[in-house]
Amino acid sequence: MGAIVTLTTDFGLTDAYIAAMKGVILGINPEAKLVDICHTVRPQNVAQAAFILSTTYRYFPQGTIHLAVVDPGVGTQRQAIILRTPHAYFVAPDNGVLSYVFQQYGDVKGGQETMELPPELEAVAITRPEFWRTPVSATFHGRDIFAPIAARLSLGHAPEEFGEKVPSLTVLPLVHPHMVSKDVMVGHILHIDNFGNIITNITSEDLPRHDITIEIGSHVISGLSRTYGEGEGLLALIGSSGYLEIALKDGSASAHLGVDIGAQVNIRARTK
Amino acid sequence: MGAIVTLTTDFGLTDAYIAAMKGVILGINPEAKLVDICHTVRPQNVAQAAFILSTTYRYFPQGTIHLAVVDPGVGTQRQAIILRTPHAYFVAPDNGVLSYVFQQYGDVKGGQETMELPPELEAVAITRPEFWRTPVSATFHGRDIFAPIAARLSLGHAPEEFGEKVPSLTVLPLVHPHMVSKDVMVGHILHIDNFGNIITNITSEDLPRHDITIEIGSHVISGLSRTYGEGEGLLALIGSSGYLEIALKDGSASAHLGVDIGAQVNIRARTK
Amino acid sequence: MGAIVTLTTDFGLTDAYIAAMKGVILGINPEAKLVDICHTVRPQNVAQAAFILSTTYRYFPQGTIHLAVVDPGVGTQRQAIILRTPHAYFVAPDNGVLSYVFQQYGDVKGGQETMELPPELEAVAITRPEFWRTPVSATFHGRDIFAPIAARLSLGHAPEEFGEKVPSLTVLPLVHPHMVSKDVMVGHILHIDNFGNIITNITSEDLPRHDITIEIGSHVISGLSRTYGEGEGLLALIGSSGYLEIALKDGSASAHLGVDIGAQVNIRARTK
Repeated sequence: MGAIVTLTTDFGLTDAYIAAMKGVILGINPEAKLVDICHTVRPQNVAQAAFILSTTYRYFPQGTIHLAVVDPGVGTQRQAIILRTPHAYFVAPDNGVLSYVFQQYGDVKGGQETMELPPELEAVAITRPEFWRTPVSATFHGRDIFAPIAARLSLGHAPEEFGEKVPSLTVLPLVHPHMVSKDVMVGHILHIDNFGNIITNITSEDLPRHDITIEIGSHVISGLSRTYGEGEGLLALIGSSGYLEIALKDGSASAHLGVDIGAQVNIRARTK
Repeated sequence: MGAIVTLTTDFGLTDAYIAAMKGVILGINPEAKLVDICHTVRPQNVAQAAFILSTTYRYFPQGTIHLAVVDPGVGTQRQAIILRTPHAYFVAPDNGVLSYVFQQYGDVKGGQETMELPPELEAVAITRPEFWRTPVSATFHGRDIFAPIAARLSLGHAPEEFGEKVPSLTVLPLVHPHMVSKDVMVGHILHIDNFGNIITNITSEDLPRHDITIEIGSHVISGLSRTYGEGEGLLALIGSSGYLEIALKDGSASAHLGVDIGAQVNIRARTK
Repeated sequence: MGAIVTLTTDFGLTDAYIAAMKGVILGINPEAKLVDICHTVRPQNVAQAAFILSTTYRYFPQGTIHLAVVDPGVGTQRQAIILRTPHAYFVAPDNGVLSYVFQQYGDVKGGQETMELPPELEAVAITRPEFWRTPVSATFHGRDIFAPIAARLSLGHAPEEFGEKVPSLTVLPLVHPHMVSKDVMVGHILHIDNFGNIITNITSEDLPRHDITIEIGSHVISGLSRTYGEGEGLLALIGSSGYLEIALKDGSASAHLGVDIGAQVNIRARTK
């Protein structure tokens, strides 16, 4: 079966670990279609992987299998899981890397460490070793556990064949934008892209309905632009994934502003 | 249909934008074969993308669809186009990124901003939104317009289904090598590859028929070598795409010479 | 036929040379499944490519064709070869890039320049130009010779169709770990991965059966860990390819220690 299997890792582009996983998958399902999502997640940065995966998986066809291996706890007690959503399957460590996917189905509160699964979602702990490569390396479950399970899902096997259902999953302490006064919302930078565009955790739904100014460091941007090609200098717009972005015309906003992931962004409703 | 769709962008290797385009393509044509040409075009460098694409597309089978998204004007008035050549289809913004492809079918003069299409070529403006993803992001036509159109071409649809024919396309102010005296031709650096090899805009046809010296900065190279393994130090040869290259045996010519894209190279016919 | 063809090169990620090879392969076998193993081998570092290839190819299905183009002698007298092992085909220059694959079938001694093929292996020199692209570029045999041959192997053609059998192949001066006293084994660093994990040429079989300490620079590590998640600070473990690795919990061991490929690692059997 020619199902799509995507791969998201922090393995970088200078090793052959990703290729080993692909070899294992093709050995089990020679017809699997392999697509790389991103392999340059910062090492062990589960939150960045969670964000990238959540903004990309929905562009893939229904039933696509998404393998996410950002796994600082490999070989320890953390569980390996399969998550089934109405749109896709995910195979990943249960370390929060699917948090932004959950969030699309139920409100993940800050401060929680686990979340009950909403009724549309179903999760299985990967516990039956007869489906793994043997011997299992203690340091590379991506190749020996996750890849074989993803390959078998791509052949049409059901998640339940690989272990027991679990009622809740680990969630990251997600940073939501929040109001700090009647007129001021505080958000943070989630990601910086290859162009230096700054992507915040503020979505178009979060934004006030009236005129706004965006404050980052000592810079103030008035109102939203529609495209990167408008105006001069710094601009703010709703990016292609629905999040507020700050960009610099013909340049890198993050280099210009000297900011990185985690920095604060304020939205101020303009009073007349 | 298992047609090949290639992708050339300036999206870099640290984001998932390319994966989103691939997901959209596979959602429309699950049998499309996706091949990356290059995603590390310097941000918004239309000329570099134009060169890379023109030297690579001809190694792909007849009928391949080449998607090129280096698009600083995304969301503005620039048109999106399909170009059909006797060998391939191209889906791209009409910003000159296909200039070196045109040049293979008709002489593009320096200074022109648009070029009439020669009879072998056919271009269509992508204007019918019923074939696009909705809503169209103002900042990511690659995903919402170019990818769906490329996917539909890969299913066998004709370019004319997606818009109206156009008689001319935008061309870059291409830098041609030219004679500045009876014996001296001036060219420029178009690209520097991963090995530090310097690739010029001078082709083997441009070169004088007699003995030559190549001048770059204060360095002079006598005659052409056949391979990178010959002689010692700097050497010049006709590279694998037919352009004059300057290389350094067991080293990086560009680092050694301290030159970059755009720098001048002189060819001098040796007098006896 | 949907055979798998993998690619390992030092072409880097900023050019379209890899795409040109893929185009050529798909032109000959549209059903070939192309998988990248690694393209960031250090320029012309045949030994690093040899190691990466040898630790990865065995995860691919039986009959996979592995194309390895790290080829500083391109266009010179070095031969192009096909190697058939019980598990796979390799298409490569005969410059030692297959040394670690040979080593899995017979003991390659240090100091040798060529090795007789053991009976399980068969090699053919690629000498019949009617199967190559014409004209052959003197600088890019990857595209014009290796890619067409790999594509034809993927269609089911036998190696013997492309040239004459050869009895021996070039081997690198491989560095084996060796005992320098009754209690001390000396090994070297073969590779440093994206996480900064240090991979040595010492396998689990090489290690003494009793308690050991690992010495690198002025640091001493006592005993082996099982996972990257254990303990604090520097740790040693048997990595996912069976080689002794030195890692730093939540950090880069190679940056912490300031060591690179080639540096020495000592194993000392602990006396009671």
